[in-house]
Amino acid sequence: MARTYDPQALVEGALSGERASIARLISMVERGGDSAHAAIAKLYPHTGSAYTVGITGAPGAGKSTLTDKLISRIRKDDVEVGVLAIDPSSPFSGGAILGDRVRMQDHATDTGVFIRSMATRGHLGGLSLATPQAVRVLDAAGKPWVLIETVGVGQVEIEVAGEADTTLVVVNPGWGDAVQAAKAGLLEIADLFVVNKADRDGAAETVRDLEFMLDLSLDSDWRPPIVKTVASKGEGFEELWDAILSHRAFLESDGRLAARRTKRIREELRAIVVASLYERAGELLSGEHFDKLAAAVEAREVDPDSAAESLLSETLS
Amino acid sequence: MARTYDPQALVEGALSGERASIARLISMVERGGDSAHAAIAKLYPHTGSAYTVGITGAPGAGKSTLTDKLISRIRKDDVEVGVLAIDPSSPFSGGAILGDRVRMQDHATDTGVFIRSMATRGHLGGLSLATPQAVRVLDAAGKPWVLIETVGVGQVEIEVAGEADTTLVVVNPGWGDAVQAAKAGLLEIADLFVVNKADRDGAAETVRDLEFMLDLSLDSDWRPPIVKTVASKGEGFEELWDAILSHRAFLESDGRLAARRTKRIREELRAIVVASLYERAGELLSGEHFDKLAAAVEAREVDPDSAAESLLSETLS
Repeated sequence: MARTYDPQALVEGALSGERASIARLISMVERGGDSAHAAIAKLYPHTGSAYTVGITGAPGAGKSTLTDKLISRIRKDDVEVGVLAIDPSSPFSGGAILGDRVRMQDHATDTGVFIRSMATRGHLGGLSLATPQAVRVLDAAGKPWVLIETVGVGQVEIEVAGEADTTLVVVNPGWGDAVQAAKAGLLEIADLFVVNKADRDGAAETVRDLEFMLDLSLDSDWRPPIVKTVASKGEGFEELWDAILSHRAFLESDGRLAARRTKRIREELRAIVVASLYERAGELLSGEHFDKLAAAVEAREVDPDSAAESLLSETLS
Repeated sequence: MARTYDPQALVEGALSGERASIARLISMVERGGDSAHAAIAKLYPHTGSAYTVGITGAPGAGKSTLTDKLISRIRKDDVEVGVLAIDPSSPFSGGAILGDRVRMQDHATDTGVFIRSMATRGHLGGLSLATPQAVRVLDAAGKPWVLIETVGVGQVEIEVAGEADTTLVVVNPGWGDAVQAAKAGLLEIADLFVVNKADRDGAAETVRDLEFMLDLSLDSDWRPPIVKTVASKGEGFEELWDAILSHRAFLESDGRLAARRTKRIREELRAIVVASLYERAGELLSGEHFDKLAAAVEAREVDPDSAAESLLSETLS
């Protein structure tokens, strides 16, 4: 098959579930720019069916293995699943990282699973803007479930995971792990806690710590359940899947899911506008006019605020 | 004396070195907004004489005591000095924090010293934008030296300290302290290293570590000297002051100081423009037009990128 980068052809390919087209479209939205915009504009009317699950927690908590076993559980019901592994720090993407390859082996022959890593391209807000677009590609391609797994708990990753329909926060047994999660800002975004490696000492204490923190801080009508898993042995995944489905059912009652998605759309629009303004700032801040004004400020002919004002008004009006 | 908040009167007061006017003008630039802009526009032609010294390093390195003793050394030469203590995390400002009071006692009766804390007002880029303005107030008020001391080594503090004419990085003896400084990004901004508490074990090793890192990383024609002090006992301050004067003399030769200040003015203009664009984003992202577009995106009548574009083009053109 000839490789195509024509947005229309790629969109048609993706809509029929064709894997190479899905992969190329995700690369496209990762890069951003006009062709990504054109492709998403075509895809967008075909989206809205996928349900997203965010999976976050400290490095080493076993998120990859957990995601892997969750994929297996979802596939038992014979529904398709897309997976995005978000790694802002990785210079690699497109399935090049080790974790992907390992997991790909488990699901390599399963055409109902599409796994993909996303790394930063170095541009501001890159992953925060690209992730919802990548979800749309998988959504339009007919994946009813999309898992968004983060590699670490950086600001971007928390943001991305927190914007899923259901967000899982993974912790491990051990003193202080629950406190660390709270400090990292994970308490606020958790719809569900997973105590993974629950066959280790301290699992009961960690559950108790989490319950205690929920007692202290809870102010919504959903109390995040706490599920124990041993991902390496595949234990606890019926319970985890049930808990995810319960949260989904909760959100789908009383228009909560719709309200959550409305909020998310508004936040995404904000983020795109801010990123565009940043780009525009780059244009304002180069060229002859800027040089002249900077020189005038240096010569004390004009103060910095007035110079900035003139820069803004002349270029934006 | 009646309290005045008239910018013109405050500027005249500050120009004649009147303390209450200086304090009120600094509060004004801390808050930002139109009156600060008006006041600085009036002050600005009277600035350009002050030389700034940034003092940064990890919490507990003894920066406050060091600053205190450096003030005393400068005052020996009977020149006036202004001091700004930058504390992004403090909810207090205007001289309310403990450190200020302690130091104020040492210099309380000395009218040649003006000490002031600056805290964040919670707005984006607040301290980065307000600090150069506060320096201008002290500059116009006739302080030939302005010390800018940071409380910690957060991103804002490193930025603020790094934009002084001469930047001091304070470390302590002890394994790893030099490495921590490097990790925090302090190596790049240091014009001068101070190993404070140099009467403790490991001072020689810390000096050696710093020399080694300088050997590895140095790519400019100024090699930061390393000065040992024991601030609590006032030891090493002749050497420190000499080192500061040497760096100043170095910068003043061959137009280096002018070049550094040109670069700084350009960076400040950039920062003001970016902050203004952020404010403008706030306007774009509220109101009826935004609500309508967000609803259209939700209804999948328009994709997010196109909606953002329409928002930007209609409001900015």
